[in-house]
Amino acid sequence: MKKITRSWTQKRDQKLEKLESINSLLDGKFIDTSRIVEVMEALIEPGSKVVLEGDNQKQASFLSQKLVEVNPSKVHDLHMIMSSISRPEHLDIFERGIAERIDFSYCGSQSLRVAQMVEDGTLKLGEIHTYLELFGRLFVDLIPDVALVAADKADKDGNLYTGNNTEETPTIVEAAAFKDGIVIVQVNEIVDELPRVDIPASWVDVVVKADKPYVLEALFTRDPQNITELQILMGMMAIKGIYGKHQVQSLNHGIGFNTAAIELLLPTYGEQLGLKGKIAKHWTLNPHPTLIPAIECGWVESIHSFGGEVGMEKYIAARPDIFFVGKDGSMRSNRALSQVAGQFAVDMFIGSTLQIDREGNSSTVTAGRLSGFGGAPNMGHDPRGRRHSTAAWLDMIENPHELSKGKKLVVQMVETFGANKKPVFVEKLDAIKVRNEAGLAIAPVMIYGDDVTHVVTEEGIAYLYKAEGLDERKKALAAIAGVTPFGMESNEKEVKKLREKGIVAYPEDLGISRVQAKRSLLAAQSISDLVKWSDGLYEPTSKFRSWS
Amino acid sequence: MKKITRSWTQKRDQKLEKLESINSLLDGKFIDTSRIVEVMEALIEPGSKVVLEGDNQKQASFLSQKLVEVNPSKVHDLHMIMSSISRPEHLDIFERGIAERIDFSYCGSQSLRVAQMVEDGTLKLGEIHTYLELFGRLFVDLIPDVALVAADKADKDGNLYTGNNTEETPTIVEAAAFKDGIVIVQVNEIVDELPRVDIPASWVDVVVKADKPYVLEALFTRDPQNITELQILMGMMAIKGIYGKHQVQSLNHGIGFNTAAIELLLPTYGEQLGLKGKIAKHWTLNPHPTLIPAIECGWVESIHSFGGEVGMEKYIAARPDIFFVGKDGSMRSNRALSQVAGQFAVDMFIGSTLQIDREGNSSTVTAGRLSGFGGAPNMGHDPRGRRHSTAAWLDMIENPHELSKGKKLVVQMVETFGANKKPVFVEKLDAIKVRNEAGLAIAPVMIYGDDVTHVVTEEGIAYLYKAEGLDERKKALAAIAGVTPFGMESNEKEVKKLREKGIVAYPEDLGISRVQAKRSLLAAQSISDLVKWSDGLYEPTSKFRSWS
Repeated sequence: MKKITRSWTQKRDQKLEKLESINSLLDGKFIDTSRIVEVMEALIEPGSKVVLEGDNQKQASFLSQKLVEVNPSKVHDLHMIMSSISRPEHLDIFERGIAERIDFSYCGSQSLRVAQMVEDGTLKLGEIHTYLELFGRLFVDLIPDVALVAADKADKDGNLYTGNNTEETPTIVEAAAFKDGIVIVQVNEIVDELPRVDIPASWVDVVVKADKPYVLEALFTRDPQNITELQILMGMMAIKGIYGKHQVQSLNHGIGFNTAAIELLLPTYGEQLGLKGKIAKHWTLNPHPTLIPAIECGWVESIHSFGGEVGMEKYIAARPDIFFVGKDGSMRSNRALSQVAGQFAVDMFIGSTLQIDREGNSSTVTAGRLSGFGGAPNMGHDPRGRRHSTAAWLDMIENPHELSKGKKLVVQMVETFGANKKPVFVEKLDAIKVRNEAGLAIAPVMIYGDDVTHVVTEEGIAYLYKAEGLDERKKALAAIAGVTPFGMESNEKEVKKLREKGIVAYPEDLGISRVQAKRSLLAAQSISDLVKWSDGLYEPTSKFRSWS
Repeated sequence: MKKITRSWTQKRDQKLEKLESINSLLDGKFIDTSRIVEVMEALIEPGSKVVLEGDNQKQASFLSQKLVEVNPSKVHDLHMIMSSISRPEHLDIFERGIAERIDFSYCGSQSLRVAQMVEDGTLKLGEIHTYLELFGRLFVDLIPDVALVAADKADKDGNLYTGNNTEETPTIVEAAAFKDGIVIVQVNEIVDELPRVDIPASWVDVVVKADKPYVLEALFTRDPQNITELQILMGMMAIKGIYGKHQVQSLNHGIGFNTAAIELLLPTYGEQLGLKGKIAKHWTLNPHPTLIPAIECGWVESIHSFGGEVGMEKYIAARPDIFFVGKDGSMRSNRALSQVAGQFAVDMFIGSTLQIDREGNSSTVTAGRLSGFGGAPNMGHDPRGRRHSTAAWLDMIENPHELSKGKKLVVQMVETFGANKKPVFVEKLDAIKVRNEAGLAIAPVMIYGDDVTHVVTEEGIAYLYKAEGLDERKKALAAIAGVTPFGMESNEKEVKKLREKGIVAYPEDLGISRVQAKRSLLAAQSISDLVKWSDGLYEPTSKFRSWS
C-alpha cells in the first residue's frame, strides 16, 4: 500500500493550457466564425473522447462540417461518442483519419455506410447503446474530453438558450463541464438577452456563431393521408383490446403510421367506446402533430418530450397546460429525463419493429445495416427497478402470489408483411448475422421476447403475458402471424383454444368489424386537417405542405 | 369528436395571479425571511402537489419547518412528493391537516412513525418508489404545482448555486418550472457573484434567505474502527471471488461497513492480489471517506456522485481528476444522472439488506417500518434496456446461444445474523406482512431474487447466476446461510457438489484463510487515519472526531 505521487489536476491543467493557447482568438468566450478550425486544432488533443452532438433532430452541423476540415496530422484518432449518426460528415471524419472509434445509439440514413466502414476497418465500432445508457457512460467510463454541441442563442456572457430543442444538450455539457472537458458551442445567434437560460455560462468554454442555423429535422411528423385501413384496423384493436382493456393511463408511442393511426382514432373511435378521460392521459413522446386532434378534444393531460418537432413551436407555446413550457413560451425538452420517465413512470410502450422471431424477440437491425435503436429498448422493457404500482401494471399479474408484482405493458404493432413485402415474422433475426459480420459481442436485439406483453397485427392481438411457457407463447404469435411461413404453421384447433383462453383475440372477438376500419374514422385525413385542428398554430415544413 | 372550449393556460394564469397577490412582499424574486409563512399561504393552493426537498443528505429544513406553521384552514390536503422523509416536521404537516397524501422513496429515522400514521389514517400512502421512478413521475402523473427546495447561495437575479449538494434539486425544479409550477427556494446566503450557476434564475420564482443554513447530514461516513474481522473476511472474498474473478471495472457500492471494508482492503489485499489497475476503476457513489486510501494509492479513475458528503469538500476540490468538479472547485453531484449511470453504465451493484428469503428476494422493510429503498432497487437489478457489453457483464452468460446477452452483477453481502441477532435468512420476508398492514398493492421487496447474481456471507459466496433452476438456487443460498434455520437444512453432500460445480465457494476454495482477516489489513483503522491519508483535506464532522 503506497500513496502515489501525481498531480490530481492534470485534466484541468491541460484544459487551461489549451485555452491559454487560443487566448488571442478569444473575446470572452467568443471566437470568430472563421477561426473555428484553428480553435478545434488547438483544443482537441489526438485520441480524445469527443461527444459530437448529433441528436435525433438537432445537429451541431456547423461544428461537424468544420471538424472534417481540421488537419489530420494535428487532430487524429478521436474516440467519437454520438447519440445519433445522422450526417455524411459524421463518417467523413473517419475516412480522413481524424476519428478512429465510435460509440453510438442510433444511426438512420447512414446505417448502410456504417456497416461497410466497420467491414473495411475504416471505423472501429465501440458499442451500440440505448440513449440512456450512453448518457450514463458519459459519467462513468466515457467521460468526454471535448463536447461539441449546438444551441439556439447565446448571450454576451455565454449563457445558452436551447428552447424547444434542448434534447440532450444539457446532459452532454454537464458531463464535460464538470470533469474539465472543453465545451464548444455553436449558436444560431448572439443576443443581448435570452428568452430564458437553459445552460449556464459557467458550464461553457467557447461559443461560436455558426455560418448558418443548425440543421433540424422533422422526424416525428406522419402525414395522415398515408395511413392505411389496415393500420386503422390495428389501431382500433389496440385501443379497445389494450388501452381500454387495461386502463392504460400513461404511455409512450413510438413513431410510425400505426401509432399515428391510434392518435387520430382516439377522438373518434375512442370516444365512441366511451374511453375519453379514462385512458391515455399522460404521455412521454415528441410533440407528434397527429396528437393535435386528441389534445383539442380534451384527451391529453400532459406531454413530456425528448426533443422538439419542427412546425409545432407555436402550437406548443399556446398549450402550456399540456406541454412542458418555460416562462418564455417555448418548450423545454430533455431527452435524458424523458427517457427516465418513459422507462419508469408510464404504463405502456407501444412501437413497431422490422423483424420478430418465434419467441417474440425483435429488431430493427437488418442485413447490412447497423441502425442502432435509440430509445426503444429503454422504453420497451420491463423496468425491474420499478416499485410503484398502477392499475395497468398490476393487470399484468396472471398468477398472483405473495411477492408478485406488475409489469410494464410492452406492445409491438406490426403488419405481418413489411413495406418491402418481406415477412416481419421470421425464423431468425438478421441481427444474428449482423452480430457475426460486425464482430459485436451480442446480437443487436431491440426488444427481447420475454419483455413483450402484447403483439398486434392485422390478424389480431397476442396477449403474450397470459401465455404459459415458451410453447404457448410461440403458438400465440403464430396465430397472429398471418400467411408468413411461421404463421402458416398455426392450426385452427389450437387457435380456437388460444382464443377461448383469451391469449389471442381476433377482431371479431373484440367486437370489431373489419369494415368499420375506414379512413373516414381518422380525426384528420391530412396535414392540412391537422393545421385546421390547431387553428393554424401548427406550421408544417414545406416537405409536408402539399397545398401551398 | 368535438373540440373542447377551454383556456389552455389555466395553470400559468393561476400562477401569475398567485404571484401577483404577493407582489407587495416581493423585491424582485426575493422575500423577507419573516414573511415566508404568509407567502406559502398565498402561493400554495389546497390540494396541490408539493415537492418538498428532503434528499438523502440535504434538507430544505427552513421551508419544512415553516410549512408546519401555515394555517390549515388556508393550506390543506396537500399531496406531498418527497424523495426522503427525514425530519419530524415532514410528518407533523400530516398531523396538522396541512398535508393528506404522500409519495416517497426513502424513509430512515421516521419509518416507524410513518407506519403508525398510515395505520391511524393520519397519512394516506401513495406509492413507495425508487428515486429514479419518482423523478420520472414528476414529468408524467405527479407534476408538481409547487417545489420547495434548498440551495447554498443565490445571486441578486435569483441564479442558484447548489455546489457539492446539487443532488436532485435541478430535477425537481425543472419539473415544476416548465409546467407552470411555483418554485420557492431557501438559500443560506445571498451574494453578488456565485462561484458558478447550478440552476438558472429563469427557473425560479421566489427566493428566501433561511434563518439558518439548511440541515445536511453525513450519511455516507463509516468509521473504520467499527469494521469487524468478519466484515474483513467477507470483503476479501468479494474482492477475490467477485471483483477479481469477473474483472469488474465499474461499480456502485451501497453504504455499510461491509462495503467500507472492501474500500479499505483494495490498497492492501487487492494490491497483494495484483489487481490494481485491473478492477474497480469507475465508481458511481457518494464520496465515501473510506475510499480515500484507494484513491490515494491510484486505484480509482473516476467517481460520479448522487450527492455530497459533509467533510469531503476540500478533499474533492483537490482531486478534480477523480471527482466531477466545476471550474469553481466544488463538486457537482446529480442524483438523477448518477442513478442513470448506476443503473445502466456500471458492471456491478453491491450492497446489503436486512432480510433474504429462500429464493433470494430481499428487503430492508421489516415489521412495523415503512423504510422505502432509495436507489437500491434501481442499481440492484438487471437493466434489461441495456445493449452495450463489458467483460464482467458478458461473464454472466452461462449457456451461450445466438441471442444470449450479459447481465449486471447484483451482489448482496450480509452476515447470516443481523445486528439484532436475528437471522437475515428468513422463511418469509416481513415485507409481506407490511404489505397487508399498510394496504400496499405489492410487497415492498428491495431486490428480487432473480436479479441477484451473487450473495456473500461470512460462510462463503453463492454464485447464483450459475445455479440451474430454483431448486439449485435455494440450495446454494442455504449453503452459505450458516446456522440460520434454513442454513441448517443444507447437507454436506449437496454442498460438496455445489462447491465442485463452482456454484458455492467457501473461503478455502478461494484460497483465503480465515486467520488472514485481521483489522491490520485495513488501509485505515480510524477516521483519524483517513484524515492522514487525505493530508488533512478530509474534515470529518465533530460526530466522527474522537481525537479533538
